[in-house]
Amino acid sequence: MLNAEPLSAKAFAPYGDVIETSKNSMAAMNEARFERFDDLAKINVDGSNDGHVAISIAVAKVPVELPYRFELVERHPLGSQAFIPLNEFAFTVVVAPFGESVDAADLRAFTTNGRQGINYRRGVWHMPLIATEAGQEFLIVDRAPSIDNVQVLALGQAITLII
Amino acid sequence: MLNAEPLSAKAFAPYGDVIETSKNSMAAMNEARFERFDDLAKINVDGSNDGHVAISIAVAKVPVELPYRFELVERHPLGSQAFIPLNEFAFTVVVAPFGESVDAADLRAFTTNGRQGINYRRGVWHMPLIATEAGQEFLIVDRAPSIDNVQVLALGQAITLII
Repeated sequence: MLNAEPLSAKAFAPYGDVIETSKNSMAAMNEARFERFDDLAKINVDGSNDGHVAISIAVAKVPVELPYRFELVERHPLGSQAFIPLNEFAFTVVVAPFGESVDAADLRAFTTNGRQGINYRRGVWHMPLIATEAGQEFLIVDRAPSIDNVQVLALGQAITLII
Repeated sequence: MLNAEPLSAKAFAPYGDVIETSKNSMAAMNEARFERFDDLAKINVDGSNDGHVAISIAVAKVPVELPYRFELVERHPLGSQAFIPLNEFAFTVVVAPFGESVDAADLRAFTTNGRQGINYRRGVWHMPLIATEAGQEFLIVDRAPSIDNVQVLALGQAITLII
């Protein structure tokens, strides 16, 4: 059993960035008609073999059943990967400390507040993206092409995620 | 007077990309639980002087009065700039053909459908971002730092934008 905790920038720092509007990064823009929160995520993308930063959208078709059980984690050795909700919904991510192997006891789960996005640091093990309702849309900022940029690891047991 | 037309990828192609879910770019993801629309915008960011791709958020504080009148356009010589709505609202952009000067007669205005985002090609003249309601939030993917990356041009006349 893995219980999700509320996402915060501090707790998530070992794994990546929280993309949100906070007072830390505020600046004025266009004659102060906007508040701008700048440079919220460390994008790190390998440029070899036509590697480049890409903006993509993922639309959930089939939500998972809760409680969700998973046995695999994945990582992207060639780039960071950001997910930002496009229609205001909370989502849950699971991450593991950086390293070649994963101990299931070290997994942590975080649930966003409905407006936060997250950016996985390059190479961080994480549970593949899940949606709890069809129609949830994520903006993704990661590396294209995706070839050779996913590694999957079996945990050796099923983890039950409590959201 | 400049009348806004509905945004389409074809009409906007000379100025940049439309970020939207269309059948052109669809792929399955995570055992087909998602449809993924990949690599929707050409990100082009000058890497000199610590230049890098940044994810930022702009929150509208003061909406403009309609009809909106503007006399200036701007461009970003060091990078493309994408705006994606985070809370589902239509917005209007004004662009000019690529070149050193701008003839007001060549300006075109486009209004999104409420879900589309746009990506200005590097160096494309455009009207500074406006919001029509407070609280509208844009995700921005552009170049940081922004120093030396904005040029402003006076049109020599006020343009009345009809949205």
